[in-house]
Amino acid sequence: MADKPKKPQKLKARLPRGLEDRGPAAIKATRQMVEKIRQTYERYGFEPVETPAIEYTDALGKFLPDQDRPNEGVFSFQDDDQQWLSLRYDLTAPLARYVAENFDTLPKPYRSYRAGYVFRNEKPGPGRFRQFMQFDADTVGSASPAADAEMCMMAADTMEALGVPRGSYVVKVNNRKVLDGVREALGIANEGQWLTVMRAIDKFDRLGISGVRQLLGEGRKDESGDFTKGAGLQGDDIALVLSAIEQEQNAAIDARLRHSKIGQEGRDELDQIGRFAAASGYGPDRIKIDPSVVRGLEYYTGPVFEVELLLDTKDEKGRPVRFGSVGGGGRYDGLVSRFRGEPVPATGFSIGVSRLQAAATLLGKLDTRPEFGPVVVTVFDRDRVADYQKFVSALRAENIRAELYLGNTKNMGNQFKYADRRNSPCVIIQGSDEKARGEVQIKDLIEGAKAAAAIASNQEWRETRPAQFSCKEEEIVAKVREVLARHDVTWG
Amino acid sequence: MADKPKKPQKLKARLPRGLEDRGPAAIKATRQMVEKIRQTYERYGFEPVETPAIEYTDALGKFLPDQDRPNEGVFSFQDDDQQWLSLRYDLTAPLARYVAENFDTLPKPYRSYRAGYVFRNEKPGPGRFRQFMQFDADTVGSASPAADAEMCMMAADTMEALGVPRGSYVVKVNNRKVLDGVREALGIANEGQWLTVMRAIDKFDRLGISGVRQLLGEGRKDESGDFTKGAGLQGDDIALVLSAIEQEQNAAIDARLRHSKIGQEGRDELDQIGRFAAASGYGPDRIKIDPSVVRGLEYYTGPVFEVELLLDTKDEKGRPVRFGSVGGGGRYDGLVSRFRGEPVPATGFSIGVSRLQAAATLLGKLDTRPEFGPVVVTVFDRDRVADYQKFVSALRAENIRAELYLGNTKNMGNQFKYADRRNSPCVIIQGSDEKARGEVQIKDLIEGAKAAAAIASNQEWRETRPAQFSCKEEEIVAKVREVLARHDVTWG
Repeated sequence: MADKPKKPQKLKARLPRGLEDRGPAAIKATRQMVEKIRQTYERYGFEPVETPAIEYTDALGKFLPDQDRPNEGVFSFQDDDQQWLSLRYDLTAPLARYVAENFDTLPKPYRSYRAGYVFRNEKPGPGRFRQFMQFDADTVGSASPAADAEMCMMAADTMEALGVPRGSYVVKVNNRKVLDGVREALGIANEGQWLTVMRAIDKFDRLGISGVRQLLGEGRKDESGDFTKGAGLQGDDIALVLSAIEQEQNAAIDARLRHSKIGQEGRDELDQIGRFAAASGYGPDRIKIDPSVVRGLEYYTGPVFEVELLLDTKDEKGRPVRFGSVGGGGRYDGLVSRFRGEPVPATGFSIGVSRLQAAATLLGKLDTRPEFGPVVVTVFDRDRVADYQKFVSALRAENIRAELYLGNTKNMGNQFKYADRRNSPCVIIQGSDEKARGEVQIKDLIEGAKAAAAIASNQEWRETRPAQFSCKEEEIVAKVREVLARHDVTWG
Repeated sequence: MADKPKKPQKLKARLPRGLEDRGPAAIKATRQMVEKIRQTYERYGFEPVETPAIEYTDALGKFLPDQDRPNEGVFSFQDDDQQWLSLRYDLTAPLARYVAENFDTLPKPYRSYRAGYVFRNEKPGPGRFRQFMQFDADTVGSASPAADAEMCMMAADTMEALGVPRGSYVVKVNNRKVLDGVREALGIANEGQWLTVMRAIDKFDRLGISGVRQLLGEGRKDESGDFTKGAGLQGDDIALVLSAIEQEQNAAIDARLRHSKIGQEGRDELDQIGRFAAASGYGPDRIKIDPSVVRGLEYYTGPVFEVELLLDTKDEKGRPVRFGSVGGGGRYDGLVSRFRGEPVPATGFSIGVSRLQAAATLLGKLDTRPEFGPVVVTVFDRDRVADYQKFVSALRAENIRAELYLGNTKNMGNQFKYADRRNSPCVIIQGSDEKARGEVQIKDLIEGAKAAAAIASNQEWRETRPAQFSCKEEEIVAKVREVLARHDVTWG
């Protein structure tokens, strides 16, 4: 019976790992964050453009950090004409495709921004999802370090627009050319060895100078006893790399970097970025040259930036969490050129919206109070649903969030419980007595909750019926308005 | 050399077919539409929830219209644990999964909304994309026709919130149970034959009664000569179906439907929906019972709705375009039950945002005027970029969109051309003379364009220099404000 497989009785409802459902508080926070980032980017003169989630695999290229695991990291599938398609893993590669495809019609330099979900086919972990949101800005067609400096200033302004106070973030800037200069000075030809050096530098923040020293040399054993093989550098070479990533020892770098043209070029560009930023009032408390910044992505060719949150925060269990990078970017002069066969300079900056939102939540910077739900009109008499619906429509027509209770109406208690669950400010009730008098009862749930805390006995409650009053049918809107005003109920 | 394939010199930048890039005007229109729909849905008491774009393939099920082409319609790929994943093709199947997975913690009835992109692996056509946006609302846990009626009212309110005037849209309502009653009366056991009957009914709008008659019988030859095989019904049976979809002949339906319990149930529910709507003031000009509505999706089990735009519009070539359905929905009592093994009633409504936006654009209902670009500070002297950057920062600090020209600065003409391309309201210029006097020149491009139209000769232009004036460096913000105010420049 191979053609009739046994079907399970009941399908299991489950989300694939590394993906998340999002509720009202998270959605509202994202909406507000995206709006603030958008306003900042637009103030900088960037205009929106959006590309789809699906691109030709070859157009995206393989630029993910884990180059040593080819074919990993990306969700791919074949189109019916056999061409390979992939879900975008960032917003930069699709932008490069867009600019190349529309090169002649775009103003140049072309400054644009976009927000959207990106997808990584990676092993998920805590706070590490396979779908997450980024918000990017890019300037294509300008080779000027002023364009890079602007990205850094915009990154700083965005953090402050999002409520991260000055001093709690820093935009760190380095230049791949400086790292290329280090490589030249070391004379490393082997690609794998150089990658190991870069990864060691990248860990400076987390492991400090002694950890990096081990990873540049023979290797390092971590607390769990796992051993990571090092780059195998010797004494002088290790000292050169360490001096390059410790700012205080800049003089020491210059001694051996003096002969590297590319290294000098990199340092000159960094100087210019620092000067542009300073001229506009962005000092090293906000934009800081930091030679230990590497950035994982392969396609960077010049200045690279990283926005770091500086606060040591605690997670839900009270353990300290260092948030690290919530955004970054850099110059990627080769990405558009792949399509055009001519040099096209470009620089960009990307905010990890999902990641920054997680940080802001931990920092207590997000308004996570539940919103008030709608006014609930209860169903006392099933045959009069159309009448109750009329009350609902009258409230909605006056821009008051309202709904008819649509569940099982046998038990009024369930209807009140539902209204509580929805965080409703008040409910409307009309039984046959009220109907006969042309009236309704309005129960103020916010006041009621306060009163319930103050009243001792059930009997007293029943006798006083706090926070409940009656009004004429035609007064419903006005009376509900009064309840909303009394408790400062507003809806976003 | 199998391991070293020849690499093409230059990659072709192209978007896979059926996908689109979107520019500033379209993005702005979508943002405004989404915001208006959101406000309407929230006024109805719905709260947001979002699910990811990727789901387990089996959780989505195969509910696309073209059931006769299994495995088509959906983008799928295998996870590294060999389980099949798919991109969602609508927002309803993922919601059913979400509700089933979180059943015990959700308030019931559970009213929620969400906007997002969905993906269809279909043959693209004009206005038919493989990625498009939907905006859904659903009520899970209510079997009441009041819940269906509410969906229809909300659909009507949404259309008007989006600027579609009353009379230019109609929410058409039918009930799958009525169609099931027709099937019962006809005694059709064969699934394929019934599908052909449904498809014939579905074409009533486009082909009229005579076209449907042919498709119910032997078949129909269209203008191009292509023949579509019919359902093979005979005279009396064809008459029954036709009477069922022509409202004026309701009496004739009832004669044979009288024996169908499900058919009668369907008609009763339709009556109730009509009465609920009428009680809230939504007459048949807005919500209309229409027995020819079928809705393609397989999972509907009761009332189905469709929002139709009624205006005959013209396309870019002046040909009449009938827009038809821009949204719809219905009751899908089985979709959550798939996971729960118990009945879970549910009803929902979905707006095709991309489709409605295309309609609104054709109808001229969208503001498609280009937005004003940023104020452009030009670079007269390359060595003074940091000074110019200061002017930019001063403007931005006062919430005025501004940017430094970052392209090749050799030619001032190019800088002005760029500002024109960006639709900038004005540019700032500072040469060495102005610098010496602590002044800048402000060129009002909007005024300048008007003046240019009025001035006859180049000489007169050069002599009068209209729309250009100088001011002190410290007056830049105030003077730019004056220019913006003079031309009512506002930014969204």
